[in-house]
Amino acid sequence: MFRISIIFVSLVLANPHRAHGDDSLPSWNDTTSKKAIVAFVERVTKEGSPDFVPAPERIATFDNDGTLWAEKPVPFQVLFAFARVKALAPQHPEWKTHEPFASLLKGDMNGLAASGEKGILQVIAATHTGITTDEFTQEVQNWIATAKHPKTGRLYTGMVYQPMLELLAYLRANGFKTFIVSGGGVEFMRAWAERVYRIPPEQVVGSSGKLKLETRAGKLVLIKLPEVDLIDDKEGKPVGIQTRIGRRPIAAFGNSDGDLQMLQWTTQGSGVRFALLVHHDDAKREFAYDRADRLQRLDKAWDEAIAKGWTVVSMKNDWKTVFPPTR
Amino acid sequence: MFRISIIFVSLVLANPHRAHGDDSLPSWNDTTSKKAIVAFVERVTKEGSPDFVPAPERIATFDNDGTLWAEKPVPFQVLFAFARVKALAPQHPEWKTHEPFASLLKGDMNGLAASGEKGILQVIAATHTGITTDEFTQEVQNWIATAKHPKTGRLYTGMVYQPMLELLAYLRANGFKTFIVSGGGVEFMRAWAERVYRIPPEQVVGSSGKLKLETRAGKLVLIKLPEVDLIDDKEGKPVGIQTRIGRRPIAAFGNSDGDLQMLQWTTQGSGVRFALLVHHDDAKREFAYDRADRLQRLDKAWDEAIAKGWTVVSMKNDWKTVFPPTR
Repeated sequence: MFRISIIFVSLVLANPHRAHGDDSLPSWNDTTSKKAIVAFVERVTKEGSPDFVPAPERIATFDNDGTLWAEKPVPFQVLFAFARVKALAPQHPEWKTHEPFASLLKGDMNGLAASGEKGILQVIAATHTGITTDEFTQEVQNWIATAKHPKTGRLYTGMVYQPMLELLAYLRANGFKTFIVSGGGVEFMRAWAERVYRIPPEQVVGSSGKLKLETRAGKLVLIKLPEVDLIDDKEGKPVGIQTRIGRRPIAAFGNSDGDLQMLQWTTQGSGVRFALLVHHDDAKREFAYDRADRLQRLDKAWDEAIAKGWTVVSMKNDWKTVFPPTR
Repeated sequence: MFRISIIFVSLVLANPHRAHGDDSLPSWNDTTSKKAIVAFVERVTKEGSPDFVPAPERIATFDNDGTLWAEKPVPFQVLFAFARVKALAPQHPEWKTHEPFASLLKGDMNGLAASGEKGILQVIAATHTGITTDEFTQEVQNWIATAKHPKTGRLYTGMVYQPMLELLAYLRANGFKTFIVSGGGVEFMRAWAERVYRIPPEQVVGSSGKLKLETRAGKLVLIKLPEVDLIDDKEGKPVGIQTRIGRRPIAAFGNSDGDLQMLQWTTQGSGVRFALLVHHDDAKREFAYDRADRLQRLDKAWDEAIAKGWTVVSMKNDWKTVFPPTR
């Protein structure tokens, strides 16, 4: 019996299609959300079942901000942009008197907010373009290795959600290919997504600007231009999925109205589909915000989730822990 | 000993990183080209060696037309467009008197050629846009299942190169992720690349138009618009690689000047890199064309290959067979 057990355990460990939800999602409480995830995965991976989906078609797409990691007080990429404005300010004395930079440098967030979307785009252009893709990646990696969240004091990569890390691994162990499909900048996320989420660059879809190939010192470089290529949010998400992945997901995961079209696109495919929204209802361990939030609203998508029977995760009730143990 | 042999054989078969070039490339003659491929693969996959590259970074990119399948008399996607013009003509009586459609419908290729790039773009717009992505995929699949090449009488998918199919499989068996990076239309190629090359849609990068999300009969659809998104040729290839893959390849494969920048981008990365050009010098078994060709010129890239020591495959001398056995 001992010998047989050893062999059985080895088989279970060796066979990626045999990972069980009960063991693989330890940070999830045993509530309806976890049960719905496990039931879906078991349905589509059971060979011979009418709901079986071949592994190459097991595409799962995840929003990033608010779905895989926190997004308050503002998406962390915005904080990266602010840090870069401060770092670049000595080279731009004119910013002291020009909005939105003047407000930003004085720490006047109301003044910055008053500059609206146009102001934000100016900050993005000043901090995300005019440099090579390799230089940008290095800047992101330098920042994310050291910058700390103003409220928790954690590294930003320490504010990923432990239950979602387990969910990503559980899906991959069941033959799924996991993608990020986020409104965040694609090159910002790719700089650390492989290390943190085990999602390689080619499986990260995000908002992007145009690039230009140039020769510098005899070598080719790609320059980031201040022209929008794709806004990977709302109706842009199915566009990003089709142009970058080329296959409709069978499962999609989000947390706000910006994810609604991705969840609709996913669930309108034929066969069994799965859609999940993370509801931020845990002011104590994370943040609480939904319909009334100005930046990351969960309103229409929530209504549709209720109407369509999508899974809505309560962070407060469904998750045993929110963040990974601090390192 | 018998038992040990069995275990050894099982390990070799089970371990994807142990496939050997000598067995895996049967359609390649034992010339310098094959030796260069195998030497490169063995260098980057040998653990502990200074040239070792971890599997996730083993990105290999392949041009399609002229590199993985034939491209004469014109790229096959052009023949698909012509077939669609003929099929759509009854709905467009005005085409009888409007160029470039009038020439095309009369089979007057000189008249069509006289319409130049503008004419070709009009044909592409008329045959590739204004329909949903799902409808377009279906049209491509219908055509490619039945249309035959004017010279060989083969299905177009029967004009893929057997040695390149083996090369794709050999690289994958050694932990490489194989991508197409082609000037051809991304949705045209994705419609059959997985079946023919075992390259899934998310690993196909190509030229593309913009898409628009609309609701039809209560369901979301993506409409193909007549606006260019990416021309994935020449300097567009490194742009396509960076925006879609996000990681520099360590090996790249092409056949014409349209691939030069991809090969430069690949070989200018640090560490061991591999670049290969297929030279069409086999008029008897395929086609012969290079520096003087009007459509698919191999000139500057050839010069650079010689100067840099890239591998130049002679189809005539390096390949035992060109096309797969007819089915």
